[in-house]
Amino acid sequence: MVTVTIVKIGYIGTTTLIDAILDERSARADIKIRVISSSVQMGEADAEDAAKIAAGVPSDLYVAISPNVGLPGPAKVREILKKTGKPIIVIGDEPSRKAVKSFPEEGIGYIVIYGDPMISAKAPFLDPVEMALFNADVIRVLAVTGVFRLVHTTLDKVIEEIKAGQKPVLPELIINKTAALAASDIKNPYAYAKAMAAYEASKEVASLSTEGVFKLEERSEAMPVLAAAHELMRMAAKLADEAREIEKANDTAVRLAHFKKGDLRRRVKLFEEPEK
Amino acid sequence: MVTVTIVKIGYIGTTTLIDAILDERSARADIKIRVISSSVQMGEADAEDAAKIAAGVPSDLYVAISPNVGLPGPAKVREILKKTGKPIIVIGDEPSRKAVKSFPEEGIGYIVIYGDPMISAKAPFLDPVEMALFNADVIRVLAVTGVFRLVHTTLDKVIEEIKAGQKPVLPELIINKTAALAASDIKNPYAYAKAMAAYEASKEVASLSTEGVFKLEERSEAMPVLAAAHELMRMAAKLADEAREIEKANDTAVRLAHFKKGDLRRRVKLFEEPEK
Amino acid sequence: MVTVTIVKIGYIGTTTLIDAILDERSARADIKIRVISSSVQMGEADAEDAAKIAAGVPSDLYVAISPNVGLPGPAKVREILKKTGKPIIVIGDEPSRKAVKSFPEEGIGYIVIYGDPMISAKAPFLDPVEMALFNADVIRVLAVTGVFRLVHTTLDKVIEEIKAGQKPVLPELIINKTAALAASDIKNPYAYAKAMAAYEASKEVASLSTEGVFKLEERSEAMPVLAAAHELMRMAAKLADEAREIEKANDTAVRLAHFKKGDLRRRVKLFEEPEK
Amino acid sequence: MVTVTIVKIGYIGTTTLIDAILDERSARADIKIRVISSSVQMGEADAEDAAKIAAGVPSDLYVAISPNVGLPGPAKVREILKKTGKPIIVIGDEPSRKAVKSFPEEGIGYIVIYGDPMISAKAPFLDPVEMALFNADVIRVLAVTGVFRLVHTTLDKVIEEIKAGQKPVLPELIINKTAALAASDIKNPYAYAKAMAAYEASKEVASLSTEGVFKLEERSEAMPVLAAAHELMRMAAKLADEAREIEKANDTAVRLAHFKKGDLRRRVKLFEEPEK
Amino acid sequence: MVTVTIVKIGYIGTTTLIDAILDERSARADIKIRVISSSVQMGEADAEDAAKIAAGVPSDLYVAISPNVGLPGPAKVREILKKTGKPIIVIGDEPSRKAVKSFPEEGIGYIVIYGDPMISAKAPFLDPVEMALFNADVIRVLAVTGVFRLVHTTLDKVIEEIKAGQKPVLPELIINKTAALAASDIKNPYAYAKAMAAYEASKEVASLSTEGVFKLEERSEAMPVLAAAHELMRMAAKLADEAREIEKANDTAVRLAHFKKGDLRRRVKLFEEPEK
Amino acid sequence: MVTVTIVKIGYIGTTTLIDAILDERSARADIKIRVISSSVQMGEADAEDAAKIAAGVPSDLYVAISPNVGLPGPAKVREILKKTGKPIIVIGDEPSRKAVKSFPEEGIGYIVIYGDPMISAKAPFLDPVEMALFNADVIRVLAVTGVFRLVHTTLDKVIEEIKAGQKPVLPELIINKTAALAASDIKNPYAYAKAMAAYEASKEVASLSTEGVFKLEERSEAMPVLAAAHELMRMAAKLADEAREIEKANDTAVRLAHFKKGDLRRRVKLFEEPEK
Repeated sequence: MVTVTIVKIGYIGTTTLIDAILDERSARADIKIRVISSSVQMGEADAEDAAKIAAGVPSDLYVAISPNVGLPGPAKVREILKKTGKPIIVIGDEPSRKAVKSFPEEGIGYIVIYGDPMISAKAPFLDPVEMALFNADVIRVLAVTGVFRLVHTTLDKVIEEIKAGQKPVLPELIINKTAALAASDIKNPYAYAKAMAAYEASKEVASLSTEGVFKLEERSEAMPVLAAAHELMRMAAKLADEAREIEKANDTAVRLAHFKKGDLRRRVKLFEEPEK
Repeated sequence: MVTVTIVKIGYIGTTTLIDAILDERSARADIKIRVISSSVQMGEADAEDAAKIAAGVPSDLYVAISPNVGLPGPAKVREILKKTGKPIIVIGDEPSRKAVKSFPEEGIGYIVIYGDPMISAKAPFLDPVEMALFNADVIRVLAVTGVFRLVHTTLDKVIEEIKAGQKPVLPELIINKTAALAASDIKNPYAYAKAMAAYEASKEVASLSTEGVFKLEERSEAMPVLAAAHELMRMAAKLADEAREIEKANDTAVRLAHFKKGDLRRRVKLFEEPEK
Repeated sequence: MVTVTIVKIGYIGTTTLIDAILDERSARADIKIRVISSSVQMGEADAEDAAKIAAGVPSDLYVAISPNVGLPGPAKVREILKKTGKPIIVIGDEPSRKAVKSFPEEGIGYIVIYGDPMISAKAPFLDPVEMALFNADVIRVLAVTGVFRLVHTTLDKVIEEIKAGQKPVLPELIINKTAALAASDIKNPYAYAKAMAAYEASKEVASLSTEGVFKLEERSEAMPVLAAAHELMRMAAKLADEAREIEKANDTAVRLAHFKKGDLRRRVKLFEEPEK
Repeated sequence: MVTVTIVKIGYIGTTTLIDAILDERSARADIKIRVISSSVQMGEADAEDAAKIAAGVPSDLYVAISPNVGLPGPAKVREILKKTGKPIIVIGDEPSRKAVKSFPEEGIGYIVIYGDPMISAKAPFLDPVEMALFNADVIRVLAVTGVFRLVHTTLDKVIEEIKAGQKPVLPELIINKTAALAASDIKNPYAYAKAMAAYEASKEVASLSTEGVFKLEERSEAMPVLAAAHELMRMAAKLADEAREIEKANDTAVRLAHFKKGDLRRRVKLFEEPEK
Repeated sequence: MVTVTIVKIGYIGTTTLIDAILDERSARADIKIRVISSSVQMGEADAEDAAKIAAGVPSDLYVAISPNVGLPGPAKVREILKKTGKPIIVIGDEPSRKAVKSFPEEGIGYIVIYGDPMISAKAPFLDPVEMALFNADVIRVLAVTGVFRLVHTTLDKVIEEIKAGQKPVLPELIINKTAALAASDIKNPYAYAKAMAAYEASKEVASLSTEGVFKLEERSEAMPVLAAAHELMRMAAKLADEAREIEKANDTAVRLAHFKKGDLRRRVKLFEEPEK
Repeated sequence: MVTVTIVKIGYIGTTTLIDAILDERSARADIKIRVISSSVQMGEADAEDAAKIAAGVPSDLYVAISPNVGLPGPAKVREILKKTGKPIIVIGDEPSRKAVKSFPEEGIGYIVIYGDPMISAKAPFLDPVEMALFNADVIRVLAVTGVFRLVHTTLDKVIEEIKAGQKPVLPELIINKTAALAASDIKNPYAYAKAMAAYEASKEVASLSTEGVFKLEERSEAMPVLAAAHELMRMAAKLADEAREIEKANDTAVRLAHFKKGDLRRRVKLFEEPEK
């Protein structure tokens, strides 16, 4: 039994389901998952607080997920978790790509997801409903384009190594469009291209939201850009959906599910017997 | 400063963003949120473990969210949290409606969400990708139809009472289609009807997933029903999207956002000044 | 030559084309069809009137179709037709399921169609245009999901028995989602699931229309529910269309057509030779 | 009380609901409707048979509907009905336009509907499912573009005259795109144009189906044209749906419903009080 | 090296890309293309002016493209180009079909494209944006339905003959729906039917635009018809898109590309090696 | 009368209709347009050839349009046209932005269009059909997002100045998302945001096509990226279409049309009188 403790500081799209993708049916008997989160708050004090609780949970593996892992809050989490001496994997969005460069020498693994964009978090635009809709779109893109597959199989591998009593090899993984799609198991070439386009559109969303949130001070200038970011995200989700529907129409939508002992079984044709 | 500690045991759709909808831009200075979760695992031991950690966090309000709150795991959470003497609000899906009847006399508040359906959690069908797509669809329906609005304003109100030093009046809230839509702020009558239809379709999903998971033993019988549940969910999300797009086309998509002191500001026309 | 006389009392979706599905190209030389209808009127006097005309038409088989066959009007039809001594098959919607239980002992066959829902027949909502649109959606769902196939092959079989001089075995058929889909000849599993979801959504429409028509007296409460019923029906039709389009894209849309002697020929690939 | 007896010989799209559009909620106490039909069969003997039954029903008004009213079957119907001395209104599709020219001098009224196209009734293509789907599409176009509105208000007017004891003025009505749309009550100009385009596309369907059924003998040549006719029809229905959805989004979808005494009440805004 | 000089007088949809479809990647070393155009202006003087410039360009082949090639402007172009003694191919829309009848005896080749309809060129409707959108729709239909394929392979063949030092056989080609689709290389029968329906709808657009531009003088009568023409065109483009998407979903979208020496290479499966 | 001579060297999306947007109905009597083009070929010799022909046409204004205006071919065009002493305006895509910096000091005006992306011009992917479809999508985005409006009004202004006998002020215009949308006249804020998202997606297409064409040498790596570029372009066009449809549904789709004397008249409500 491996205990995986996940520390969530603030939100990226992957935060919503990062633990659930490890055991989608709650069927596994080989792992125990605990999640400690400071919710949307990313300040150093909040992060420290959550990390300390997490450090108090006897764990075999820590996963810390947040936006931009180079910020003080997420850094504090790593500082505290490192004291446990347990393996740590950090997951972040594209702005995290600079900070992670030094992680290997600290013995920390990382996964950086380029297609998990910042939300248009500015006062006159974002409310809970708009925020939720944005996340629904992001989740769809991450699910279809291979990101969630690549994240869970990467974590699955580390967990297997821990189960086997080995010192795990921690990931150093940048999920750009090539890496994501390679994990997507999409068979039709046009569906593959659609999913790749969705991933790039999703990545481009961050350019717009960043501009709208940080660069444009005039509300009248910022608002169209903030809204355009979310429209582009909705479009990306639609494109991902188109890709998935093609795979379904061809009965080639691959399923790779977790079973009791943590083993993964792969199946393609929906109404036929599972393969291992 | 009010500390809200959320205990998540297993997953319903609302679980993914329950804390984020209280402070969508991470802008509030009046609350602190902590989340402790046993992730997908709902067993009594897992629930107890998470609840004990949560009970150790000094809190002004506890929110416990899980599928069917009548199960032993969620019950254990309440048992432990009650010892803190702090107010407790329980959030669950439709199967929870029986168990909550006794909550008022225990001094526990509740929110039961009819349109947050069980997933088709059966081995040959569900994998992490399918699970994530289902949640994306559920989130869309809950966001558009008024559920998230009703949940956060209900919690906001309790938090306000605590901030004011009052003994909070805990909610006893069943979110059926009427309650949800009344909170949705949808102006166009056809958009309103589309959203209501989406909510009912979402509720109907649970009939199919329950049948597929618990009643049909033959894989060949269960598979179409499991898949039909998710197709119906996807359709419900599309219908919710249609409703939202109509409101956007009429520039009547209401936004009700949290500001620094926890105050909510309402705005309708996107490019015009916020109203309070 | 077999004469089939169809008595239509009031309207369900199937009423519109029940006779046409027996001879879609008007190519058969083995049957003669006559239809007598009291149109939308279902009162006892109207039903009696129509039934008496029908009883005066020399027939080998009577088919009586109406909403809720347990109502006095449809009951009167059966009473009158029984006096002819000819075989009778009654077709009705879901509320008919109680009344038909006693039919076998009366020697009457039946077909009950769960996915043929009541319309939102309330004054401030329904007009001829809205009524027609609802029927267009219902027809699409019934056509794609296998209902029309199952109904016509069931009647075809009885007609064949009569042609062969046998005493026909009258159907005792409940068309729930399983029965409908089994007759649908849909090959792609996701198209199958979509069609099943459409059927269930269509069935759920009746819950909404019934609530809106009979349970909600306040116009302000009833109107959204009445409109939601029709929006759900439109959505169900779209889902059925998605299923059909997948089958067409895979060139697996099965055709089973009537020929001169009432024989059915089956073909799959559109541009290739018919099979028998 | 006016008795309207409708004789249906063969099928055009309007046949399916011609009687239902006179009393969509079965609410009228001022009329009685009877329908006698030879179903899909249009031969002279079948038509005569049905007409004789109809002539035996004491009626104040006869409506005879069929494809191409110039064919011998429909002509026989008129011959028989004329002997009753009662007013007769004939309804047909575009090929009927020649035959109706002589109707006024015979004292027979007529309604010719250009947008109600022939189906692709050829053996290797049409089966009951395809036939039903085609009709669903036709009904949608006829409902949205104003045809059903124009047909029922035209018949309503004649019925009112009979109720008032007047000799009714029988219609001489060609429903081309201009006449249809003028009756459609569509407010948005682009929705109006979309509906008009749908009507013209629907009219063009007949060119294709006629070519496929009558002019192309080689199956390999006919099949694409037959299928193209139905694809064009499906597209026309989608365009009509787009038009309707715009009107709904603007809350300008007019409803004109029949009430108890046959009076029509008009309402526009869905959630507001009916107007007369 | 063959020099092809294209004279464009006024615009049909094909005008926009007629030269580009001969060398889509600018990869050919065997031809040189020059284009001389009087833009939208079709008057005799403008046409003469452009033709004279073109006649001054040493060319091996002339292609003259315009609306209705029977008008004086296009006729003047032919008159001038004929003096060069070089082969001439004229391309026009459907109204050109009369004028081209005499071309063979004049030694002029022709291509008449039925599915390239006139735009709704009337003052209160058409502006540059509407004009561009119409052309986008027309281009989609011409590309998918086989027209562009048939045009470029027809011209490719003539160019090959000239390269080979032969006297080229000039085309006498009417591109009706049969000819277009035969060149489309669409494999799925329903996609084929959809594309054919798109082509016919596109042809029907011209009936509407012609009526709106030339026959209806009252602005209030003309406007809906002008707008309906463009709505029908948009619908035709959507249908063409549906056809293309099916071919992509089946990975059967054929590509036939020009290479350096003007040779065409054909490939079907997108991610696999090109075939010749 | 002003003569505008347009030199087209190679293709960007705007090339297809650059002249037509100046006189969409061929109604102007104040200008004469001539177009000289080397078609897809951009080499120095081809460009020189076309430019020399153009220089021989007596003109009041030259417009030179091509991809990347910094390449030798387009540079040669400017060199030759400058000798005429007439005003020159250069139009190019985003890669042109460096070269144009020196234009003002040379007395040359420029328009650089960021949202007119390079096509995926690589052998195994692009054929004439794919090329045409890409252009259809680009045209739609340029038309809806304000680019075509901004280009023609910019040229219109220069033409007016020449007509007035003034020395024209030549444009120095970069069309980024802000500039484009400001010219779009889109009224609904969400439609505005959708159009902006479409523009940015279109701009992002160039990143993908550039990567696929120039950076990825392995066919297996390049193909998905090339195809993704076109899928993103198709999605951008869909988003632009969504924006346009909203404006149409609100009857706010602005039309700004050219009349006889080159004057522009603006109208908004489709069925109402034109405004000036």
